[in-house]
Amino acid sequence: MGDTHLDRAVRLDRADRLAGYRDRFVIADPALVYLDGNSLGRLPVATRERLRAVVDTWGTELIGGWDRWIEVNRAAGDVLAGIVGAAAGEVILADSTSVNLYKLACAALAARPGRTVIVTDDDNFPTDRYVLAGIAADRGLTLRMVGTDPDRGIDPAAVTAALDGDVALLCLSHVSYRSGAVADLPALTAAAHEVGALVLWDLCHSAGAVPVGLTAAGADLAVGCTYKYLNGGPGAPAFLYVRADLQTVVRQPIWGWFGQSGQFAMGPSYDPLPDIRRFLVGTPPVLAAYAALEGARLTAEAGVEAIAAKGRALTGYAVDLVDAWLAPLGFRLASPRDPCRRGAHVTLHHPQAWQVCQALKAAGVIPDFRAPDRLRLGMAPLYTRFVDVHSGLSRLRDVVGAGAHEPYPSVPAGIT
Amino acid sequence: MGDTHLDRAVRLDRADRLAGYRDRFVIADPALVYLDGNSLGRLPVATRERLRAVVDTWGTELIGGWDRWIEVNRAAGDVLAGIVGAAAGEVILADSTSVNLYKLACAALAARPGRTVIVTDDDNFPTDRYVLAGIAADRGLTLRMVGTDPDRGIDPAAVTAALDGDVALLCLSHVSYRSGAVADLPALTAAAHEVGALVLWDLCHSAGAVPVGLTAAGADLAVGCTYKYLNGGPGAPAFLYVRADLQTVVRQPIWGWFGQSGQFAMGPSYDPLPDIRRFLVGTPPVLAAYAALEGARLTAEAGVEAIAAKGRALTGYAVDLVDAWLAPLGFRLASPRDPCRRGAHVTLHHPQAWQVCQALKAAGVIPDFRAPDRLRLGMAPLYTRFVDVHSGLSRLRDVVGAGAHEPYPSVPAGIT
Repeated sequence: MGDTHLDRAVRLDRADRLAGYRDRFVIADPALVYLDGNSLGRLPVATRERLRAVVDTWGTELIGGWDRWIEVNRAAGDVLAGIVGAAAGEVILADSTSVNLYKLACAALAARPGRTVIVTDDDNFPTDRYVLAGIAADRGLTLRMVGTDPDRGIDPAAVTAALDGDVALLCLSHVSYRSGAVADLPALTAAAHEVGALVLWDLCHSAGAVPVGLTAAGADLAVGCTYKYLNGGPGAPAFLYVRADLQTVVRQPIWGWFGQSGQFAMGPSYDPLPDIRRFLVGTPPVLAAYAALEGARLTAEAGVEAIAAKGRALTGYAVDLVDAWLAPLGFRLASPRDPCRRGAHVTLHHPQAWQVCQALKAAGVIPDFRAPDRLRLGMAPLYTRFVDVHSGLSRLRDVVGAGAHEPYPSVPAGIT
Repeated sequence: MGDTHLDRAVRLDRADRLAGYRDRFVIADPALVYLDGNSLGRLPVATRERLRAVVDTWGTELIGGWDRWIEVNRAAGDVLAGIVGAAAGEVILADSTSVNLYKLACAALAARPGRTVIVTDDDNFPTDRYVLAGIAADRGLTLRMVGTDPDRGIDPAAVTAALDGDVALLCLSHVSYRSGAVADLPALTAAAHEVGALVLWDLCHSAGAVPVGLTAAGADLAVGCTYKYLNGGPGAPAFLYVRADLQTVVRQPIWGWFGQSGQFAMGPSYDPLPDIRRFLVGTPPVLAAYAALEGARLTAEAGVEAIAAKGRALTGYAVDLVDAWLAPLGFRLASPRDPCRRGAHVTLHHPQAWQVCQALKAAGVIPDFRAPDRLRLGMAPLYTRFVDVHSGLSRLRDVVGAGAHEPYPSVPAGIT
C-alpha cells in the first residue's frame, strides 16, 4: 500500500512542470518536510542576493538610494496585480494587512454614508474580525457576523441573507485560514453590489495559491499579505487593491505624506495623489519591500494557474493519504473534499492535535496547529513535492500509530 | 583663515571620545562628505552582519524563527526607551511614524471625550499636519495651527495661548525638521497638562540626536522614526511611546491581532494586552525590525548625552564657518544660533538653494534641500568628523564662490 502511494508521488513529481522551482529556494535541510508555507514561505535564492544588493546600496549610495527605492511599492504592486487578477496600477505594497484592512474598511464606510452595518463571517481571520469590531465600536456601527462552518467555509446563502440596504461593507476572506475553503468571490461580490454595498476581500491565504480574479469579479477592495505563498519573508509588507475607478472616489483615513501630491513640496494641506499611491501612508520599509518584490516575482513567473493546479493535485493526493492512513487513526478532514473548493492547505481534526503537532515536529515534519483541535498542512506548490507530502503523512501515520504523541503535554493556556 | 579652521577641526577630532564610532559604520567612499544623516543614517557594520543572520534564520529555521522574532519589537523598544529617556516597557517598535501618529492621536482623543480641538504648529512636519487634519476632518474636530517661525522654532507663548479647556491633544515635533530648533518639551508638556490636554511628541529629528527626557517631563505619548540618527535603514520601522500609567487607559483604534491577549487562541473578541504591545497592529517586518534594533543599539552604547554634546560642537563649528565663509556669499542661518536650542543639523537660506544643492553633490558633498530656499546640513555625531564639516563647508564656499551652481536648472515643479 505504502509503495503504491509512493510510486504515485514519484510519478506526479516527474510530470510536474513546476518541479524546477524548488531549486529557486534555499533548502537548508533536505530531510525536513516543511508543510507550513501557508504561514511563512521559504527563502528564495534571489531574495538573499537582492537583500545583499539593497543593503550595499544603502551603504554606498546612502540617501541617493531613494531615487530607485521610491518606486518599490508600485513595482511590487504591479507584480502582485498580475497574481490577483487585477490591472497594473490597482495594487500597491503598503503597511501590514491589518493596517490596510483598517484603511480600506474606513474608506468604504466613508463612501457609503448613512449605512450602518458591516458584514463579515464569524470564522474570518482574527485580525479581520478585531479590526472591523474596532471600527464598528468607534463609529457606532453594527458588525453583523454570519455564522460559518469552520470546516466547510462560507455559505453564500447565509451571507446573502445578511445583506440589505443598511450594509455599507461586506468583508470576507477568499480562502479560510482554518479549512482552506475557497469562498465564491464573484458571487459574493455580486451579492454585495446587489444591495449597494462595497466588498473588501482578504487574500492572505489565497494570493499565490489560487487565482483570485479581482477584475473579472468587479471586486471593489482587497488586502493581502506577502509572507505566505508569496515568499516575501517574515512580516513582509502587505498589499492592497482598489479598483481603478474607485481610487479617486474613496479616501482612506490616515493622511500620510507618502500619499501626498508633490510629497517633497511639503505643502500646507493634504492633497492626495490621483492614483493607487494615495493609499500609502508613511515611509515604506525598503529592505522588507524588496524581499516582498522578489518573492512575488517568482510566483508571477511560474503563473498562478499552474500553481493552483499543482496545489489541487498536492492537496488531493494528501486527502487520499488521509483517507487511507489517517482516518483509521482518529483523524477527520477539516477541509472541503472538492479540490476546486480548497486553497493549498489541508486541515485535519484530531482530539490531540497539539500533541500530534509536537511529535510530528520531532519527527522532522513542520505542520501547524490551530486551536482547539486542528492540524494544518500547507503544501505550497512552488517548492513542495508529492514525495514531501508522502513523507510528511507517512511520518504522521507512524508517529500517531506508535502513540509517540501521547507523552507530550497538552496544549498550553493562551493557545486555546 | 582656512588653515586655522582646519587646525581647529583636527584638534576637535583628536579630542572626540566618540571618534571610534565612525569605524562601526560602512564608509564606502571616504572622500564623500555625507551631511544627510538626518534623512537617512549610514549602514552600521553590525547591521550588515545581523541582516545576513536573520535571512539565514529564515532560510534554515523557517516558521521556527518566530520563536525569537516575536520579541524583536519589544527588544528594540526597550533599547529605544533608554535613548528617549523612558522606561523599558514604555516604547515599542511598530509600523511607520505616520501610522503611529494616527494611532496615538486617535487614542488621545478617545481619552478626552467632549473636547473638540487638536493643537499643532504650522511648521510641523507635513505628515504630522496631514494625519492630524485627516483625523480632524473625519471626526468633525478643529485643528488649531499655532504660527511658528520656521527658522526659530516653536514659540512656547504662542502654543500656550492656543491651549484651553477645549483642547484634547497638543501634538508637536521635538526638533523642527527645517531649522533643527529644539522645542521646550518639558514646558510645553506642562502647559498641555495645565489645561487637561494630552501631549504627543514627534521625535523623528531628535531621537538619537539630543536627549528627550520623556519620563522626566511626564510626557504622555510620542512617536519617532529609526532611519535618521538611529541608523535603522531606509524606511525602518518606527516606534511609539505611551507612558506606563496610560497604557491601559488609552486605546488605539486599529485593533490588530498583534495587540491581542492570547494572540494564537484567536478568540472571538478583541481583548488587548495590558502592556505596550497593545499598540501593535499587524505582523512586523522582521528584517527591517532587526536593522532598526542594531542601529538603536549603537546609539544606546555611545550614549545620547555624549552624542548630543558632540552634535552641539559640530553644529557650533559649522555655524562659525558659515559666519566666516558663507555669509559673505549670500547664505543666512536658518537655525537657532544658541547650540542648546539646536538638534544635530544646521540649515541655511540661499536664494538659489536648489542649484547650490545640485552643485554641492557634484562636488562630493551630500546635503539636502527643503523648499523653497533652504540647504540642510546634517551632522550625525556618530560618524561625522569635524574635518568632514570643514571639507563640506569649504567645498560649499568654493562652489558658490566660483558660481558653479549657476548653470543648474532651477527647482523642478512638485518640489516647490
